[in-house]
Amino acid sequence: MPSIKIGDYLIKRLKEINIETIFGVPGDYNMPFLDLIEDDKDLVWGNNANELNAAYAADGYARIRGAGAVVTTFGVGELSAINGIAGSYSEMLPVIHIVGTPVTSSQNSHALLHHSLGNGDFQVFTKMSSMVTAAAVHLSREGALEEIDHVISTAYMCKRPGYIGLPLDFMLKEVQVSESQLKPLVLYNKPNPKEVQEIALQKILEEISEAKRPAIIVDGCILRQNLSKEANAFVLRSGFPTFSAPMGKGAIDESLPNFRGCYSGNVTLEGISKEIEDADLLIELGSIKSDFNTGNFSYGLEKKKTISLHSFGTTIYHADYNHVCMSELLLLLTEKLPEKAAPIDFGPRVRPEPIDDSTQEITHNYLWNKVPSYIASNSIVVAETGTAEFGVFNMDSPKGTTFISQILWGSIGYTVGAALGAGMADRQRIVYLFVGDGSFQLTAQEVSVYIRHGLTPVIFLLNNNGYLIEKLIHGPQRSYNNYQMWEYSKTLEFFGGHLEQNRANGKRPSQIGFEGKVNTRTEFENAMKQVTEEPNKIHFLEVIMPQFDAPRELKILVSTSENR
Amino acid sequence: MPSIKIGDYLIKRLKEINIETIFGVPGDYNMPFLDLIEDDKDLVWGNNANELNAAYAADGYARIRGAGAVVTTFGVGELSAINGIAGSYSEMLPVIHIVGTPVTSSQNSHALLHHSLGNGDFQVFTKMSSMVTAAAVHLSREGALEEIDHVISTAYMCKRPGYIGLPLDFMLKEVQVSESQLKPLVLYNKPNPKEVQEIALQKILEEISEAKRPAIIVDGCILRQNLSKEANAFVLRSGFPTFSAPMGKGAIDESLPNFRGCYSGNVTLEGISKEIEDADLLIELGSIKSDFNTGNFSYGLEKKKTISLHSFGTTIYHADYNHVCMSELLLLLTEKLPEKAAPIDFGPRVRPEPIDDSTQEITHNYLWNKVPSYIASNSIVVAETGTAEFGVFNMDSPKGTTFISQILWGSIGYTVGAALGAGMADRQRIVYLFVGDGSFQLTAQEVSVYIRHGLTPVIFLLNNNGYLIEKLIHGPQRSYNNYQMWEYSKTLEFFGGHLEQNRANGKRPSQIGFEGKVNTRTEFENAMKQVTEEPNKIHFLEVIMPQFDAPRELKILVSTSENR
Repeated sequence: MPSIKIGDYLIKRLKEINIETIFGVPGDYNMPFLDLIEDDKDLVWGNNANELNAAYAADGYARIRGAGAVVTTFGVGELSAINGIAGSYSEMLPVIHIVGTPVTSSQNSHALLHHSLGNGDFQVFTKMSSMVTAAAVHLSREGALEEIDHVISTAYMCKRPGYIGLPLDFMLKEVQVSESQLKPLVLYNKPNPKEVQEIALQKILEEISEAKRPAIIVDGCILRQNLSKEANAFVLRSGFPTFSAPMGKGAIDESLPNFRGCYSGNVTLEGISKEIEDADLLIELGSIKSDFNTGNFSYGLEKKKTISLHSFGTTIYHADYNHVCMSELLLLLTEKLPEKAAPIDFGPRVRPEPIDDSTQEITHNYLWNKVPSYIASNSIVVAETGTAEFGVFNMDSPKGTTFISQILWGSIGYTVGAALGAGMADRQRIVYLFVGDGSFQLTAQEVSVYIRHGLTPVIFLLNNNGYLIEKLIHGPQRSYNNYQMWEYSKTLEFFGGHLEQNRANGKRPSQIGFEGKVNTRTEFENAMKQVTEEPNKIHFLEVIMPQFDAPRELKILVSTSENR
Repeated sequence: MPSIKIGDYLIKRLKEINIETIFGVPGDYNMPFLDLIEDDKDLVWGNNANELNAAYAADGYARIRGAGAVVTTFGVGELSAINGIAGSYSEMLPVIHIVGTPVTSSQNSHALLHHSLGNGDFQVFTKMSSMVTAAAVHLSREGALEEIDHVISTAYMCKRPGYIGLPLDFMLKEVQVSESQLKPLVLYNKPNPKEVQEIALQKILEEISEAKRPAIIVDGCILRQNLSKEANAFVLRSGFPTFSAPMGKGAIDESLPNFRGCYSGNVTLEGISKEIEDADLLIELGSIKSDFNTGNFSYGLEKKKTISLHSFGTTIYHADYNHVCMSELLLLLTEKLPEKAAPIDFGPRVRPEPIDDSTQEITHNYLWNKVPSYIASNSIVVAETGTAEFGVFNMDSPKGTTFISQILWGSIGYTVGAALGAGMADRQRIVYLFVGDGSFQLTAQEVSVYIRHGLTPVIFLLNNNGYLIEKLIHGPQRSYNNYQMWEYSKTLEFFGGHLEQNRANGKRPSQIGFEGKVNTRTEFENAMKQVTEEPNKIHFLEVIMPQFDAPRELKILVSTSENR
């Protein structure tokens, strides 16, 4: 029987799920594993500034490539990352968290090691992680390869994180490997139950054929299940008016003739809500009914006219068809759908309010109307919790744009890490990061890692002088909603963007493009001219915005909030 | 029966344990509680840049004032802080973690709220925290005041963190309060069992009277139990040669004639180890036998000649006297101890190697020999994990200096937050922060909070271009042990130290003193002249050090490491 190093086996499995960059921070309990990563010519080490940022980066990476990985060290490192991992659980991203732990003999003797609680318990952190992952193991005995396979396949198929505690003495340990273990992991869910699926399919087709005003709402799980192509095919073939929920933004090509806009209850543009209310059949694809995705629970679709295709089941009105997963059903449905003879006439699409030209101030109304004209097709737009997250709801989406936001988990600062992950995931796509000054303060150091890797995102630091979303919810004049103002426009400089030393040893850090403050629309447009002309540089715009201005969607959400 | 708001009751209890500054980050689930804090004229809001830093700050604060508190928001905030809380568990600091959670009705209906895992489970984070705290409750029903008392008293007496989940609708809720609840909490441990204590005491006195070469080793739990004064009295009265373990640094006045230096196994200065080996009776006060505190387990004191006074028990040779706590026993022992007629002659104290004058480079040998001459008495020295932590082992301690390091938990970046906490804990004491460039990157943003609060620490950024401690342990030439170099010397500027805007609304941020790079000893000494002359300003020295230079103690520790 052939043998393999446990660490190499783990790397082989990570590659099978499309991972090329592994994020993380070194520690004395993980370094031999980092040697394997560094020595592997196909892998890139993430080189993060801290572990939380690394976890955010792995999450952003997973949103582009389907899976992500992060390596931390026992105790201190893994707990620093755990909020990011919990976010990947909440938002359904398979991120594999690999934690270097002390040698098994020290664990077994309950040694009083640094990075431990000092009580001899070496399982406690695995237990904590098991609460925010789909599968968690601390390798400690024979069967390590099987345990690795269990975590990776469970995480990948459930679209939730997985946790692997990897003791220092296991990383380079040679173990026997079977032929089946040398083959790629089987990463497909069981086929849907045939008979049940057929019944569900016929029922849906029947309802569709009887409907006079059907409508489709596309939501986040389409993205998580990588079913965007399939959903677009269904939407196109059906011809039905189609809406995206905020978490589904980007899943559907917004240039399709039957795309109608964003639906999110109260927060929806006026006119669009009526189209949903008038529908006699609603087909939901991958819905997530969270507060900020539904205008704070401001709507409830009538069950008796709603068909809902989910990741792990289908609901037709009041009946559940368990295990009839949309990955399979959606294909069949598209295939069987009769092509509409004549398109439904649904009138002109409702548009957001146009730019108010009466001021030079960079308002949200201006920003979200203007910005799409600068965004290249096939880009990645990363929008932070707060104003940016709501600003993109009704922003025009250039063809092929992927949107990244954390609408459910909503951890401020997330996007600064996630934009790194997205950038590493596909260097051909331009990343546009929109982040408020408050959120930026939590995770700002990760900008230095963009530069280290030579990434070329366009960063919009939306400076409204405080935690605006918090002020809108509670305490607009409260001192706790304000903080020290930084010289944000010097961010690239502070993080070493101009230091020659960072070019030593063959490193190729980012070239610096625009870096500065923009106070007016003219300044903004001039800066964006440079940004557009220099796509191979990193740009940083400190965008000065009126202190209490917010996207209309955020203002409505907050004003109708009762649950907090 | 009188009534009280639950939030006000909690604040009352926090004040009883000496808390005036409450650290944290606002979130929409905690803001009404922040209103109570902001409206209380005796409290200061910490205004942190992120939650991990806030937890570190609360830990540093607890090291000076005996307890600390941090407020975060449900899910995202509390998990970001949890590494800091676990550190307080490991290192035995009572930090109260208060988490604002959603209204109970939403919890009970398992609503799909932002900052949740999306599975309707609102207890999961409390469960996670319960693993790194002495007591954890998520208030959810009658009895909230009793639960608050339980957490605070348990945490305070065990010297471990406590967790209180405080739902949004409980913060301002008026509840009945009994007369006993209006009195201060009883925060004393049960008296020691009289008879057992007497037996132990007599046994110890007997052994002392027979010993020819007794010695005392003072360790970290003396600091955690606030017994420094009592330990000094014992040391002084006994006249026995006295050593401090690294975690006990600062507990004993190093100018006492019988203070002999730092003992830490292999890592001890040559000559000092022999004094310990030759002793025929060892009296340990509050020992913590962790790897980095013992030269990586390089010594084991012989049980048959060791008496060990612990926080919650006493051990005499092979016999345990449970519940005979040192807080009481130490006083009795000092009282009964016969004053030595003639002091033991133990020769001149072993000193660290003097400064090697052959270079202008700022080496560790130079730095730790030179720095004490600039440190004011009654100061706080905060030394980060890595070179600084080991550098202070044998550094001269000016009178009244408190040392803060995380020798057991060892979370890099900790000190940047802890120095904030120490500074807020006592504005009369000067804080000297020694932090490596690698560690600084994890938590740098907290420097902006120093400025916001007008603090005046002296920051030494020890720039050796990489994670040196990691390089010494493994992979000195590895790419993963390096990262983007920043323009560290511009830290105060980047974080708004010169921005007029930060002086608006009556704010009094720090005045900026020295900020720059020091490459040579002359430059260092000139900078320190300014630092000494301007004690009411914040100073930032980027100290350029040779890349592979390290304190002798760290080099020895690493070279003898077998456990990793």
